[in-house]
Amino acid sequence: MKIAIVGSGALGLYYGALLQRCGEDVRFLLRRDYEAIMNRGLKLFSINGDFQLTGVQGFRTPVEIGPVDLVLIGLKSFANDRLAELVGPLLGNDTQILTLQNGLGNEATLAALFGAERVMGGVAFLCSNRGEPGVLHHLGAGRVVIGEYQAGDRSRLEELATLFTRAGVDCRMTDDLSKVRWEKLVWNIPFNGLCALLQQTVDRLLTVAATRQSLREIMIEVITAANAQGLSSPIPETFADNMLLFTDAMGVYKPSMQLDREEGRQLETAAIFRIPLEYGRMENVRMPRVAMLATLLEQVVSVPPLADISGVEISIDETLR
Amino acid sequence: MKIAIVGSGALGLYYGALLQRCGEDVRFLLRRDYEAIMNRGLKLFSINGDFQLTGVQGFRTPVEIGPVDLVLIGLKSFANDRLAELVGPLLGNDTQILTLQNGLGNEATLAALFGAERVMGGVAFLCSNRGEPGVLHHLGAGRVVIGEYQAGDRSRLEELATLFTRAGVDCRMTDDLSKVRWEKLVWNIPFNGLCALLQQTVDRLLTVAATRQSLREIMIEVITAANAQGLSSPIPETFADNMLLFTDAMGVYKPSMQLDREEGRQLETAAIFRIPLEYGRMENVRMPRVAMLATLLEQVVSVPPLADISGVEISIDETLR
Repeated sequence: MKIAIVGSGALGLYYGALLQRCGEDVRFLLRRDYEAIMNRGLKLFSINGDFQLTGVQGFRTPVEIGPVDLVLIGLKSFANDRLAELVGPLLGNDTQILTLQNGLGNEATLAALFGAERVMGGVAFLCSNRGEPGVLHHLGAGRVVIGEYQAGDRSRLEELATLFTRAGVDCRMTDDLSKVRWEKLVWNIPFNGLCALLQQTVDRLLTVAATRQSLREIMIEVITAANAQGLSSPIPETFADNMLLFTDAMGVYKPSMQLDREEGRQLETAAIFRIPLEYGRMENVRMPRVAMLATLLEQVVSVPPLADISGVEISIDETLR
Repeated sequence: MKIAIVGSGALGLYYGALLQRCGEDVRFLLRRDYEAIMNRGLKLFSINGDFQLTGVQGFRTPVEIGPVDLVLIGLKSFANDRLAELVGPLLGNDTQILTLQNGLGNEATLAALFGAERVMGGVAFLCSNRGEPGVLHHLGAGRVVIGEYQAGDRSRLEELATLFTRAGVDCRMTDDLSKVRWEKLVWNIPFNGLCALLQQTVDRLLTVAATRQSLREIMIEVITAANAQGLSSPIPETFADNMLLFTDAMGVYKPSMQLDREEGRQLETAAIFRIPLEYGRMENVRMPRVAMLATLLEQVVSVPPLADISGVEISIDETLR
């Protein structure tokens, strides 16, 4: 199968490498790592065993790749305004698109651009990051849960699951992609949000009882919004408690958005916060805590804090009128 | 009138100095500034004219002061567990107590300790801060609005207002101290809270439309809780809009809690957040945004952020199960 990887970051490189290793014809759209990978290949340090991928087919533009059978999208969702340009040249009549991006709204964007019938989505549970150019670290997990954007025939989804499984990926199928995405948001919204805002790891948040309670309240807001979306079955409130216990077991852990903020990268606030908020609002579910968290994140990113303001400092009480 | 100042900080020193200057017998309970003030007096740099206060009566313990006619309390409210020890020795049979502290709950604490009939409260609109020991800067305003803790005869309140007025303080009386305190909280909760949390001045928060909306939503929560307290008349929602416009006019401004956090001092989260939240809860008014803000403040103060965590950094996606 001819597969193009769009968004060859920690996620796209990982799944692309596994697919190439098992014999698929994988074409990577590369930017930062182009020179390194073309000269020396891709070195993958993985908990499942390190390997060196040689003969990598890297390209700088999608036109050089041309039409493929499957486009796998690992792009950060804030770059979705480039999807038309990056994906368009990869499409033939029967090309399928699988997005493994974070958050909500990615399938809808792809469907609007290229036709809903092409689009599948997946939620990846993967811990990986990029090292120096040409080096990738796979630190844990890697499972994907894939589903159709539109309900329909399951056969192509099964083919895709077979493909991933043959490549060594734990791949499951779902008939309710929306539910899987919302379940992941139940974790991503509170933990990505608060860790990035406060610059604290998950374990630190969980040690303070009131903060633990706030995390749970945020989760309940997300669950309430999720359950208004016509899921195949509701997400129970106990899911929140399980997520807290699950996160206790993670120990010292920095969510991706916290790393993004530390390293001055753009945050995926639209896909992880604003679009879910809008999906909730459309079903008359308000999420006041989620909205406030999104706003505070946007505030600290758009208007960085100043440790020192020149001029007079005014103290103890406020002049009010 | 013999007056003791308990909590000789930027507020206590200011009002105490004005009262002494107009001839009252003022006794200051001093700690940090004791040596400086006893040796060189108190230097007040004020927008209303600088002056040097000499012959200041400073004491290190309340026992040395003994019973007075009026105790004026300017203590930070997180030190209220010391009130019994600090105020007890100052009380004679007819001693009155006026608290000018921030937030809610101070009058109730004093009433529980010393009898409700002694207690009056006031809200101070004052911009002042301490310089080096023995130096005080008065940067703006100074008005106080005073009221009885328990409804009753207005005569002693009028005497107190006359005293303050003679000392050059713009002093007004209210029959609804609770309402004045809640009105101040409508400003203090969002602006002290968010400026301290994000380490940004009020003008920076107000420039971002979504943040401005969050500020207003927090204000509306406070107004809703206030209006459940049996105030003499409700606070209208337009009060929130007026506060936003008023704050626009303040320019670059750091609320006291932001300064407290910058300088590593304890924050008045109980009086400004937790007690108002509890007063709301008792009337079945929930304030989700206020509660989350309080929790986040407590989190960053009790568990400081780490810029760098040693060990593995895990990126792009989360392992969820």
